[in-house]
Amino acid sequence: MLAIFGDAQRVQRMLDVESALARSQAQCGVIPASAAVIIASLCDADHIDFVSLGEAAANAGNLAIPLVVQLTALVAARDTEAAKFVHWGATSQDIIDTGLMLQLRDALLVIDTDLAALNAALAGLAREHRHTVMIGRTWMQHALPITFGLKAAGWLDAMLRHRTRLATLQGASLALQFGGAAGTLASLGPEAGPVAAVLARTLDLPLPDLPWHAQRDRVAEVASTIGTLVGSLGKMARDISLLTQTEIAELTEPAASGRGGSSAMPHKRNPVGCAVALAAAVRVPPLVATMLVAMVQEHERALGGWQAEWETLPLILQLSSGALEQMRVVAAGLVVDRERMRSNLDATHGLVFAEAVSMALAERIGRTAAHALVEEACRRAVATGIPLRTTLAVDAVRDPSATGALGSEQLDSLFDPQGYIGQSAAMVDRVLHTYQAGLPGQPGASSKD
Amino acid sequence: MLAIFGDAQRVQRMLDVESALARSQAQCGVIPASAAVIIASLCDADHIDFVSLGEAAANAGNLAIPLVVQLTALVAARDTEAAKFVHWGATSQDIIDTGLMLQLRDALLVIDTDLAALNAALAGLAREHRHTVMIGRTWMQHALPITFGLKAAGWLDAMLRHRTRLATLQGASLALQFGGAAGTLASLGPEAGPVAAVLARTLDLPLPDLPWHAQRDRVAEVASTIGTLVGSLGKMARDISLLTQTEIAELTEPAASGRGGSSAMPHKRNPVGCAVALAAAVRVPPLVATMLVAMVQEHERALGGWQAEWETLPLILQLSSGALEQMRVVAAGLVVDRERMRSNLDATHGLVFAEAVSMALAERIGRTAAHALVEEACRRAVATGIPLRTTLAVDAVRDPSATGALGSEQLDSLFDPQGYIGQSAAMVDRVLHTYQAGLPGQPGASSKD
Amino acid sequence: MLAIFGDAQRVQRMLDVESALARSQAQCGVIPASAAVIIASLCDADHIDFVSLGEAAANAGNLAIPLVVQLTALVAARDTEAAKFVHWGATSQDIIDTGLMLQLRDALLVIDTDLAALNAALAGLAREHRHTVMIGRTWMQHALPITFGLKAAGWLDAMLRHRTRLATLQGASLALQFGGAAGTLASLGPEAGPVAAVLARTLDLPLPDLPWHAQRDRVAEVASTIGTLVGSLGKMARDISLLTQTEIAELTEPAASGRGGSSAMPHKRNPVGCAVALAAAVRVPPLVATMLVAMVQEHERALGGWQAEWETLPLILQLSSGALEQMRVVAAGLVVDRERMRSNLDATHGLVFAEAVSMALAERIGRTAAHALVEEACRRAVATGIPLRTTLAVDAVRDPSATGALGSEQLDSLFDPQGYIGQSAAMVDRVLHTYQAGLPGQPGASSKD
Amino acid sequence: MLAIFGDAQRVQRMLDVESALARSQAQCGVIPASAAVIIASLCDADHIDFVSLGEAAANAGNLAIPLVVQLTALVAARDTEAAKFVHWGATSQDIIDTGLMLQLRDALLVIDTDLAALNAALAGLAREHRHTVMIGRTWMQHALPITFGLKAAGWLDAMLRHRTRLATLQGASLALQFGGAAGTLASLGPEAGPVAAVLARTLDLPLPDLPWHAQRDRVAEVASTIGTLVGSLGKMARDISLLTQTEIAELTEPAASGRGGSSAMPHKRNPVGCAVALAAAVRVPPLVATMLVAMVQEHERALGGWQAEWETLPLILQLSSGALEQMRVVAAGLVVDRERMRSNLDATHGLVFAEAVSMALAERIGRTAAHALVEEACRRAVATGIPLRTTLAVDAVRDPSATGALGSEQLDSLFDPQGYIGQSAAMVDRVLHTYQAGLPGQPGASSKD
Repeated sequence: MLAIFGDAQRVQRMLDVESALARSQAQCGVIPASAAVIIASLCDADHIDFVSLGEAAANAGNLAIPLVVQLTALVAARDTEAAKFVHWGATSQDIIDTGLMLQLRDALLVIDTDLAALNAALAGLAREHRHTVMIGRTWMQHALPITFGLKAAGWLDAMLRHRTRLATLQGASLALQFGGAAGTLASLGPEAGPVAAVLARTLDLPLPDLPWHAQRDRVAEVASTIGTLVGSLGKMARDISLLTQTEIAELTEPAASGRGGSSAMPHKRNPVGCAVALAAAVRVPPLVATMLVAMVQEHERALGGWQAEWETLPLILQLSSGALEQMRVVAAGLVVDRERMRSNLDATHGLVFAEAVSMALAERIGRTAAHALVEEACRRAVATGIPLRTTLAVDAVRDPSATGALGSEQLDSLFDPQGYIGQSAAMVDRVLHTYQAGLPGQPGASSKD
Repeated sequence: MLAIFGDAQRVQRMLDVESALARSQAQCGVIPASAAVIIASLCDADHIDFVSLGEAAANAGNLAIPLVVQLTALVAARDTEAAKFVHWGATSQDIIDTGLMLQLRDALLVIDTDLAALNAALAGLAREHRHTVMIGRTWMQHALPITFGLKAAGWLDAMLRHRTRLATLQGASLALQFGGAAGTLASLGPEAGPVAAVLARTLDLPLPDLPWHAQRDRVAEVASTIGTLVGSLGKMARDISLLTQTEIAELTEPAASGRGGSSAMPHKRNPVGCAVALAAAVRVPPLVATMLVAMVQEHERALGGWQAEWETLPLILQLSSGALEQMRVVAAGLVVDRERMRSNLDATHGLVFAEAVSMALAERIGRTAAHALVEEACRRAVATGIPLRTTLAVDAVRDPSATGALGSEQLDSLFDPQGYIGQSAAMVDRVLHTYQAGLPGQPGASSKD
Repeated sequence: MLAIFGDAQRVQRMLDVESALARSQAQCGVIPASAAVIIASLCDADHIDFVSLGEAAANAGNLAIPLVVQLTALVAARDTEAAKFVHWGATSQDIIDTGLMLQLRDALLVIDTDLAALNAALAGLAREHRHTVMIGRTWMQHALPITFGLKAAGWLDAMLRHRTRLATLQGASLALQFGGAAGTLASLGPEAGPVAAVLARTLDLPLPDLPWHAQRDRVAEVASTIGTLVGSLGKMARDISLLTQTEIAELTEPAASGRGGSSAMPHKRNPVGCAVALAAAVRVPPLVATMLVAMVQEHERALGGWQAEWETLPLILQLSSGALEQMRVVAAGLVVDRERMRSNLDATHGLVFAEAVSMALAERIGRTAAHALVEEACRRAVATGIPLRTTLAVDAVRDPSATGALGSEQLDSLFDPQGYIGQSAAMVDRVLHTYQAGLPGQPGASSKD
Repeated sequence: MLAIFGDAQRVQRMLDVESALARSQAQCGVIPASAAVIIASLCDADHIDFVSLGEAAANAGNLAIPLVVQLTALVAARDTEAAKFVHWGATSQDIIDTGLMLQLRDALLVIDTDLAALNAALAGLAREHRHTVMIGRTWMQHALPITFGLKAAGWLDAMLRHRTRLATLQGASLALQFGGAAGTLASLGPEAGPVAAVLARTLDLPLPDLPWHAQRDRVAEVASTIGTLVGSLGKMARDISLLTQTEIAELTEPAASGRGGSSAMPHKRNPVGCAVALAAAVRVPPLVATMLVAMVQEHERALGGWQAEWETLPLILQLSSGALEQMRVVAAGLVVDRERMRSNLDATHGLVFAEAVSMALAERIGRTAAHALVEEACRRAVATGIPLRTTLAVDAVRDPSATGALGSEQLDSLFDPQGYIGQSAAMVDRVLHTYQAGLPGQPGASSKD
């Protein structure tokens, strides 16, 4: 991802557009074929002087102007006649925006591939831990038993939707930008239509109904869709990092040499993958806001808004891709401590089964009364340190009319975590089934694993 | 939209969920049918004491807890037995999130309807002004001629994509949330699956593979998609407001009594519709960022993130809907001054035809030489105040080898704006064709107009 | 805070400005004294019809226009002559912005008072727990011992800086806005200067060098300063909520009836105060961004930017004040479990003393070698479950040249948490000393407690 | 600014901290003086291998860890004994945060110097154009006459407050960060206090009461204060860019070779300086939000929040500094067209004097009646194209009881823009006086110019 949005690749993609433009125009008889051959042969970032390009770009206001100057000089050195046809009829924004589209196509492919790999790892976790009981936590407090498979399936469920969104993006957001100075392609005369069509085909980009230079919903949609992906990655990272806390220790990030150590504390093993994803989840949303604020672009080319996009969208993709890669590594090598999950469940001496008891009682005495009764028993259990099961058993002895109806056997079953994980397994199976079904024609998701 | 997210409707939607829950559970034999009848009959916001509800909600941490308390009391007053089955097996978040989904369904429908009406108005403008020449502006400076039809088609083009996005949202983002306290539906035992299925059907919401309580990509997607719509509305409002400036005066917002006046300056007619859309385009993007940051939610129910959504998403929809409604009114009644558009074109004494001349010359002397020659002529035209056409004609007399090749007739045609609007009409037609084709099965867009 | 920014108070503050304007103009002989008396007597929100005001405001584009209409009608009903002088020479923005300044003055006072109370509670915690040893955590992993007093002093240290920032705000950000329609006060002729000066004195607001209607740095500074306060509150809330996790349980939020319960899980005690602060810490930063984006306001009155502020700044203050109030309550009643802090320290069987050992060894064998040796011992301790102290003692027996130099007595002292809390107490004392010294002239901070 | 936050300078500042640390510890007798001499002599970024540093940093999770490794190796190559004392008792964050403080000190100085230069240019414009009449615009429509001097004074007024804020920042936000692994400096034993004090003195940074590693209000305050500066720069850029529009043309950005040209349109002169500032005003506010969201940092070192700051704060300073530099150049060379300002005033045929007439009439017939009468006259003037002055004169002939009281002479004076600029000159003088008075002890502002 760093490479895709690095200086070399960025310039190369703009040159790819110049090359395709020349070849398309030659094909349509707009410029001489010989000129196109020479131009295309020189559209190579290796020929570009990046230092002087950078300096000139700062002055010119964009990167395309000095790039065209350099390219024209290169062509002129070979054939002055051909040099006349460099960048023919195009404007800077055509080259910058279409070059960006080529970068985005690559970037979305990389992200989708990494996402497929993450999903394979998550599906593996969901399957393997379909019956691994752990405590569910709400408000960061113990709530009720769940399974780790259910938690992993929840992560996967969101990621499957993100793959669908990515597929929509890939189909709908990418498009050729080609409009000339004010979007009319006037400089190309009647050949403008055919040139645009051939150019789109050459670059394998959809041909839009009209240039979108000042309508930025395409790039904003990329930004915001990727932004939601990062949010889901951040949620997964938050969960994992909370579960790696020293006192909880249900999960550990995969170890790797030189990874996650501390300069001052040799015993530390830090969840560095989660840190990357969490940092991205802090940084990307405001960058998405930047892209949305920047959409308010004046007339046929903006003053400030377009420029604000230039570094922002690549940064969004780099941060997101970095977060995704880290979470893929984390998910693939995640160390799960089933025993610790089981023992943490008992930390509250049975309080987490209060709902089970409450629901069982409610069938007899109503939800409200049962809730009050169990809440009171919980309070005593907490105060005395006596487990809830014992507290209730003693209550039953004292007043058979209340909890007495709950016999010892029923209490045993009510306090068995495996007995109170509800639809966990069925839910996991449904998500895995959706995962297996995959996206139509997308091998990554539909492969069995 | 204010009504949909107002207190009354918000509570009613939560009560609709409680009602549907009771009826679904009765249908599945989980609670007595008689209880469901009574519960359902009392799920009416008119019965709710909103003042005490608000106070209790502040203490309880959410709105569902005290609402269930009030509903239970209402039912108990009728039938204490039935009261036991209020909110059976559900958790607060089930009611809040599913209620939100019902609100979102309404809200997206309102937005889509308004968007269809906006698009009809924009299509009308594009069609009517297919040949209305105006200046295209880049960097807020005169660039080249375009048509107002092309500008309107550009707005429409983006809005058509937004309708497609809305259709995707309506199909993919809405879903039942039903998981019980920790997402396992454990409290409902083996009947959980059937109840969930019937509940989804009763509310006409898709049944997801598993509860999404802590996976917030659905609501984040709604927020960010609506955010991109607001960006496009803001772009349109920026364009219009710039064109209504006193010195430019190509457009005027429709007049309405009491609208756009000034307390101190009786002559003012302010573009108040644009102001609403522009304010929304400043306010909504950061709110989208809030929704994305809030996605990092802990475990099975978050501490802070979920709560951060509660007022944010409704605010996004209200601001967006308000902006959309204003721009619909503005587009439907927009006053277009063709003469002013034509006369503003001449403000630079022909400089805006420089590219046309440059391209015509380039065919003979190459792009770079032509560009330099025309740039120099422009500089003299600006310095002397002599129109560019005259400047060039004089040049031709002095040095026939340079611009001399451009005869008087060719100059006339080069300086005719209708002759240099390129593909404007064809582009307008393509967008209108897409508009006519409409979304499959969506009457608003496909209707002829 | 809800009251300060509620509809009634908002309108009252605008009426206060109208009243002061009339009285100031009468004092300067610009309008008849009798008119001012009548106008001032009717500047009471109780006389206002809020329903029709709200409807008219939506149409007029701001609240001041219809408010002046209602006020004028009220005055006219008493004295038609006096009604001529309502809102004399002012513009809507003068009333709205100056009314806002009066609200901000109240709001900042409330916040400062609550902050003083929070600081008193934090100072109490820092003092009481100066020697309460707990584990310090970095990357959410056990690191080294600290004291809870040091943690509380860290919170306090930031809050003391926030009080200083608030004092700066109160002195520098508030100012009269009075410029008339375009900021020149032309409508008041030569009396403009004296009227402005008397008006400022009447409202007890600083008189700025010129109107600041389109220079929004004052309100942006309020927003961003309050935004940093919320960040610090969020940090404190994150710390506390992490320490209330079931497995950690070092802290508990104060209990209160109806507070923090769960509808489905009777045993839960949720950290609801922290949730409020954490939600605010998610919501406020993007709202600050809104205020900053909105600063780009056109000319003498903006189109969109100013309007974007109207609801945003009050929301920032309400959310911040709510978060502050919650954290004040939490700090004042925080339940601290010293035993749990002590026992959690031992969770890693001594690994947290690795740095102490490493530093002691480093004096003999150098930092790098010591680090490597201790890291290796830690790895074995983790793998075998044998405490680090034992592991090292055994190592010393095997190879006296390595850790052997660390005798049993030194090991005892190295593994004593009280012996490895460094400057904790001195740091606490320094912060408490700064707290006692207080802000000059501000009773809240300088009072002994 | 690029240099200050470039890789080389960033690493050098961290090495400066390591050097100062070694020297301070030697001075306090904590490490051998000979070791400190060697360490200090090698703390030079020229010795560092940046490529391997970058790779190792990605793995280690921060830049300090591999930098210490390289520095230790460099020292060891000279003296293995001295190598033991590299980075003695410090933690990565001490080096990174204190290095950042050194960078911020430089950056704030650069910004303040540029701001002083901008202010000098603005003061010059305000003084020179104290009497240059132009139209004031509200809601982007002509409102009332102002002077260009008043507009420039408004920009200056905000910038003077920003210099005061910068001075506060420089005094209050910078501080040494030195706490060791968990903030207690335990590893330095009793010498910790003296070492910290000497280190602070050596680096000429304030010594805080306690380490602020997890309390990020200092850096958040820098970010948000700079963010408000960018907002004011954006406002100035928006004003200027609107005034450079082709039809308005009251201002032109200074010309420079290669600056603001267009690849396709040789006649264009784009306001590129404004574009830079406007792009910054879109990009910086969300980055400020990032810094505020990132403040919620866990315990003694965060997981994600701290990392999110690393690139964000430098980016804020770079974008802001770039915007400031551009606006300084723009202000210093701004081309002001007084004639155009005067002629644009007449574009509405006198409507902008409506308020003057309205106020004059109001003294006789009351504000409301006068407003209605003038509004009606304006409407007719617009409809007929007859100037307002003529319209009113004709009205006076027809009905002397209405506007008749306004004689021809009074009408002349009411329609003279110089007669209706109110306090413009006095306001300019007040701002210039404040500018001259300057900040106490800050030469930049108090110098005469």
